[in-house]
Amino acid sequence: MAEDPERPIVTLTTDFGAEDTFVAQMKGAILSICPAARIVDLTHGVPPQDVAAGAFLLETGVGAFPARTIHVVVVDPGVGSERRPLAVRNDRHVFVAPDNGVLTRVLDEEPPTEAHVIAEEHFMQPRVSSTFHGRDVLAPAAAWIARGTALRNLGPAAGELVRLPRADADLAPGASAEVPVLHVDRFGNVVLDVRESALRPHLEAGGTVTVGEGSGEVRRLCRTYAEAPADEPVLIVGSAGYLEISIDRGRAADRLGLAAGARVAVRLS
Amino acid sequence: MAEDPERPIVTLTTDFGAEDTFVAQMKGAILSICPAARIVDLTHGVPPQDVAAGAFLLETGVGAFPARTIHVVVVDPGVGSERRPLAVRNDRHVFVAPDNGVLTRVLDEEPPTEAHVIAEEHFMQPRVSSTFHGRDVLAPAAAWIARGTALRNLGPAAGELVRLPRADADLAPGASAEVPVLHVDRFGNVVLDVRESALRPHLEAGGTVTVGEGSGEVRRLCRTYAEAPADEPVLIVGSAGYLEISIDRGRAADRLGLAAGARVAVRLS
Amino acid sequence: MAEDPERPIVTLTTDFGAEDTFVAQMKGAILSICPAARIVDLTHGVPPQDVAAGAFLLETGVGAFPARTIHVVVVDPGVGSERRPLAVRNDRHVFVAPDNGVLTRVLDEEPPTEAHVIAEEHFMQPRVSSTFHGRDVLAPAAAWIARGTALRNLGPAAGELVRLPRADADLAPGASAEVPVLHVDRFGNVVLDVRESALRPHLEAGGTVTVGEGSGEVRRLCRTYAEAPADEPVLIVGSAGYLEISIDRGRAADRLGLAAGARVAVRLS
Repeated sequence: MAEDPERPIVTLTTDFGAEDTFVAQMKGAILSICPAARIVDLTHGVPPQDVAAGAFLLETGVGAFPARTIHVVVVDPGVGSERRPLAVRNDRHVFVAPDNGVLTRVLDEEPPTEAHVIAEEHFMQPRVSSTFHGRDVLAPAAAWIARGTALRNLGPAAGELVRLPRADADLAPGASAEVPVLHVDRFGNVVLDVRESALRPHLEAGGTVTVGEGSGEVRRLCRTYAEAPADEPVLIVGSAGYLEISIDRGRAADRLGLAAGARVAVRLS
Repeated sequence: MAEDPERPIVTLTTDFGAEDTFVAQMKGAILSICPAARIVDLTHGVPPQDVAAGAFLLETGVGAFPARTIHVVVVDPGVGSERRPLAVRNDRHVFVAPDNGVLTRVLDEEPPTEAHVIAEEHFMQPRVSSTFHGRDVLAPAAAWIARGTALRNLGPAAGELVRLPRADADLAPGASAEVPVLHVDRFGNVVLDVRESALRPHLEAGGTVTVGEGSGEVRRLCRTYAEAPADEPVLIVGSAGYLEISIDRGRAADRLGLAAGARVAVRLS
Repeated sequence: MAEDPERPIVTLTTDFGAEDTFVAQMKGAILSICPAARIVDLTHGVPPQDVAAGAFLLETGVGAFPARTIHVVVVDPGVGSERRPLAVRNDRHVFVAPDNGVLTRVLDEEPPTEAHVIAEEHFMQPRVSSTFHGRDVLAPAAAWIARGTALRNLGPAAGELVRLPRADADLAPGASAEVPVLHVDRFGNVVLDVRESALRPHLEAGGTVTVGEGSGEVRRLCRTYAEAPADEPVLIVGSAGYLEISIDRGRAADRLGLAAGARVAVRLS
């Protein structure tokens, strides 16, 4: 069980989509350095250059992977500028990503124990392009780590990392907070930036949660989609551990006119 | 040749699309239990919660895989309700899926020799979510089977399985039947719910087949796209073994205004 | 480093998209013959039956892969006609593809040292369909090559191969050439059919390059996206080695109204 040191797992999370060969080029770079790597696509559907969405999708994906999995994240609007390429370890996994906040959520869950800037050219492609560090810097670093290279060999300690702000810090009983829609999933479920952990103590103390206002207000909290009354929006804590608005066999996002980036009122009472 | 017992193949067929990390979470769950598994995506393009489409796409995909491949299918509108999770074996493959009819077509082709309900918690994720049994129940069961766990250890014998009705049972020479469009493929080919096996005896006896009516009628049966007259809809038995309406280098679905779920008249004469 | 002979890499480039199971069927065919193969998707987003786009995307993808990688390409509008299936080797890689010009760009970069027609039925599926040679002929041939079968065993020497014409051959200082847009990538970058190698000597001699005319004219050449002035289209040599029109964090294709297949004036002066 757990990971197999002879078959290191490397996952890829990017905003590259499926129409180009960018993802394949990263895989070729990894397999050129570490032929034993098992590469898994986490998702390539991060909206282009949307670091916040990347941070969320990454967090939803990593939990199912074995200890010591190496996660490469390429959502990198600043490629070619001074933003730093990082290799970061926490007690579960290793992350290789630009230092732009895309690791915020996974490191909130499990803080880093070690973080280095990838600086040593020995661990990069022989000729580093100015536009595709995913292939030329981040993927090779991940492959070297998969082969056993220590993070400290890649470059100097990184010190403070860039972090994105969190929304659900503002939730308090009695008050209303404007919370962003993090994501609309394949089934039209509306994922809000409210973690189960921010909600659970309030609910266990007998409190309620209300989302939206007026005709768009949703109050009923269900445990499964099947519990929801037909055709009615309900609240549910989804498999990613975030509060969602859902309609059983329907699309809540379409019904309520909500898309990623919209803001909705959340009230604890 | 054939399968390699040290490298079990697990395929995934879902309605999860590519924008979320649901598929990756299933892969992480599988690799956590069976690091040697070789995971292949069959398709994640099943329309959301469309069990009939899932049954068709699954059938098109499995034939090319070696004996003892394990196919996991997650098209699961009833997740969290009483629908049963199944592990089913036939003479070629193993299938892990909800008991909602999604296995109908593969089991029509090759009947089950063994079917068990997945009930033993030992073979599930430690904490089973109420909304994502693909990750927490079905993927882990497949991984345990890939490691050698017998189906009977997963839970009790399943007895009768849910089946979807078949359309081409109604075809008979001289009569006309309304047959559903199963699928429109990437190239605009219109796949009808008429199997080669339901057609072949009639054609070999010198019979003909006609699809559609009036200006939309199609009668010419071709063996290859290249045989088709330019820009003309023809009938062809596609690589999946179903009757299709095709236009060489054109899109028959657009020309004839047909989409999945539409019904067209099919006459044998 | 380099390739691992016990884990041959086979990549797939097709116009099959992600909604069907065509790609998975090819993978099943490969794994049935060569269980040790490591299969990597190069891209399945080639526009349907667009051989020129396939030739470009293939070239962008192959460079990152280790020596002796086997690349299967299925963009095959002539399937079932007399077009020949090929197995071609150059000093870096092996290519398995229909003889329709889709290998033009990779063989321009590195000429073939050996090219054979795939003709021996022993190396095909037992029953070859008339519509899906990707699964029944090309994938099996690649799998046999991955197992060590020599190209010459697959069939006779191929002689002359079909080639597509090149556009940037017409570029000369002082003149203007109409050059096609090869591709618009995920980020809206407009890739022109002008290779770095056709541009470099002119630029190193102090020359300039201008793309487009009137209000759509673009002259500023940048090394990175970050160098570009905000919101302004610039020229850049992209990671694939082709001249691109880009807007930092914007979509040049939308701004300039350019799509694949459009033609723009390119002037060296």
